[in-house]
Amino acid sequence: MSKRVYNFSAGPSMLPPPVLEQAAREMMNFNETGMSILEISHRSKAFDAVILAAEENLRTLMHIPEHYKVLFLQGGATLQFSMVPANLLTGTRKADYILTGVWAKKAAEEAKKYGDIRIAATSEDANFSYIPKTRPADFRADADYVHITLNNTIFGTRYAEIPDTGNIPLVADFSSGILSEEIDVSKFALIYAGAQKNVAPAGLTIVIVREDFLGKAPSETPIYFNYKTHADNGSMYNTPPTWCIYIAGEVFKYLLAHGGVAGAEENNKAKAGLLYDFIDASAFYYAPAKPDSRSLMNVVFRIGDEQLEKKFVAEAKENELIDLNGHRLAGGMRASIYNAMPMEGIEALITFMKKYEEENQ
Amino acid sequence: MSKRVYNFSAGPSMLPPPVLEQAAREMMNFNETGMSILEISHRSKAFDAVILAAEENLRTLMHIPEHYKVLFLQGGATLQFSMVPANLLTGTRKADYILTGVWAKKAAEEAKKYGDIRIAATSEDANFSYIPKTRPADFRADADYVHITLNNTIFGTRYAEIPDTGNIPLVADFSSGILSEEIDVSKFALIYAGAQKNVAPAGLTIVIVREDFLGKAPSETPIYFNYKTHADNGSMYNTPPTWCIYIAGEVFKYLLAHGGVAGAEENNKAKAGLLYDFIDASAFYYAPAKPDSRSLMNVVFRIGDEQLEKKFVAEAKENELIDLNGHRLAGGMRASIYNAMPMEGIEALITFMKKYEEENQ
Repeated sequence: MSKRVYNFSAGPSMLPPPVLEQAAREMMNFNETGMSILEISHRSKAFDAVILAAEENLRTLMHIPEHYKVLFLQGGATLQFSMVPANLLTGTRKADYILTGVWAKKAAEEAKKYGDIRIAATSEDANFSYIPKTRPADFRADADYVHITLNNTIFGTRYAEIPDTGNIPLVADFSSGILSEEIDVSKFALIYAGAQKNVAPAGLTIVIVREDFLGKAPSETPIYFNYKTHADNGSMYNTPPTWCIYIAGEVFKYLLAHGGVAGAEENNKAKAGLLYDFIDASAFYYAPAKPDSRSLMNVVFRIGDEQLEKKFVAEAKENELIDLNGHRLAGGMRASIYNAMPMEGIEALITFMKKYEEENQ
Repeated sequence: MSKRVYNFSAGPSMLPPPVLEQAAREMMNFNETGMSILEISHRSKAFDAVILAAEENLRTLMHIPEHYKVLFLQGGATLQFSMVPANLLTGTRKADYILTGVWAKKAAEEAKKYGDIRIAATSEDANFSYIPKTRPADFRADADYVHITLNNTIFGTRYAEIPDTGNIPLVADFSSGILSEEIDVSKFALIYAGAQKNVAPAGLTIVIVREDFLGKAPSETPIYFNYKTHADNGSMYNTPPTWCIYIAGEVFKYLLAHGGVAGAEENNKAKAGLLYDFIDASAFYYAPAKPDSRSLMNVVFRIGDEQLEKKFVAEAKENELIDLNGHRLAGGMRASIYNAMPMEGIEALITFMKKYEEENQ
């Protein structure tokens, strides 16, 4: 295998090398069809087998109940920021959003175009360094739904516990947390996730929706916006992103063969734990996120001195530790350590961090 | 190279083998980054070079004037059926559509959700077997735009000449015709195209829009729907479909190195000409599309006897001529012969057709 670096990008990011190797190997002839997976019709038996297996394996991995539909869409979480209210903000047209970062804010901003959006809780006052605690009474009892963002790539926080919203349907953006730890799907009315972190290349959005939330969109809703369009057509109302679904399917198989989501969770807790423990024990580095709100996927850390932080990112890159720069709104550094980042990558990062501390403290 | 069949699918369909071979070769290490193209951040220098080159090469291929923006989006033509009126049906809220097939009808249906849509011309009375002739006076002078579908995959027709709409902006769906022949972009306010026929795998939509048509969407428009969002952010407001853009870029380079669009047009006219000439000379096969309206990309042909047509498709498949079944609305057979279908594929098809005629007439 050719030289590979450790890529700490917030997404797109690392994928399992065996999946990439297989994709390369069968690029010219997929499954004895004499065609590339890039070339086969989405209406062919060969592709039908791909999309059905992908759905089945995702259902197994996430323990998705029968009465939920799985949709493979396009447009990323950004399109879901609009599709969610277009479909679900159709009863009282009230929804409550919890703001835990930039993506949650963007989701709320888009939803305002469709109805009455209230911010039920926010941690913006502390630069989104924690997940606000909520009780069912914090939400409007007649709200069509409550919206949360499971994991916040920019500020490096995550819900360690899913909020209790009582009888109010819960909607969640799982983009940077999907398949990283075991979460009970039955707590949600709808889950959506851009695939480009833990699942597949950019260009695929996964939606998991409880069947009774289909068919609520008004008739003037754009046809692509209506979840029912896609649910009624097995995600093939129009041509789906076939390559991304193929790679996602291979990632699902890989994950199933490597301990499933429980195995990924164990690895992710070990990886993130090692890194946070090192940071917490250091007098040079610190992690701004509150310990009970820390992300397993995006470890945000600082030195405090902007010059030293810039130099850190540049020198790390020379050491084949790529894309460790923090988001401009959070500053400092960010190590995005999705499922496909091996423990060796964390160890290499810590080795570099120790050396950098010694040379620059 | 492994065994390859001739794939006559309406899309996704064949891509140039050297592009696929290159993608396989550099799957594990793109451009000496130590990462797969699937894994690199869309904000990286490596990807920036990819998307900028793709745009530049598309501009060269299509002679796109400076005052047009090129956008790389998701959601296929189906999402454009809504995005076009969301952005452009914002003046008098009147638009005229020409119906030349199923996709044109779907585009018109979606546009009705946004304003007053009039069917200016249609060939539905003759099962869409021809392109209606129009004059500027056939359109409402105060219409925000006129919409056409350049090439009709299902019925196998195409505009041999772009209609003159006078001062009314012209919008066109180029999905199955883009890069197949030279067309003057400056005749259009906006062109859109799903990429999965002549350009790239499914999951990419190309939009070419004259700058003065940006910024016309009302403020309540979903942010992903607003062309200005994407134009202002170099198609990276949100994570773009990086792999599809990469493959599109390689297809553009391949096309530039092989005679450009003029070369593709010459090949396509020779390929389609050979097939139509054979069909026209045959007493066994016939092509329902009127000669002056025939598609260069989708050659629809019939025997007339449904049993013989079904048998044709099945036996062709045994001879490694794949996906020759016609769309259920058109019946019979369809040979989709996009840019990447070599002349040898047409010759193999005609050889089979002759043999089948001899055995079954």
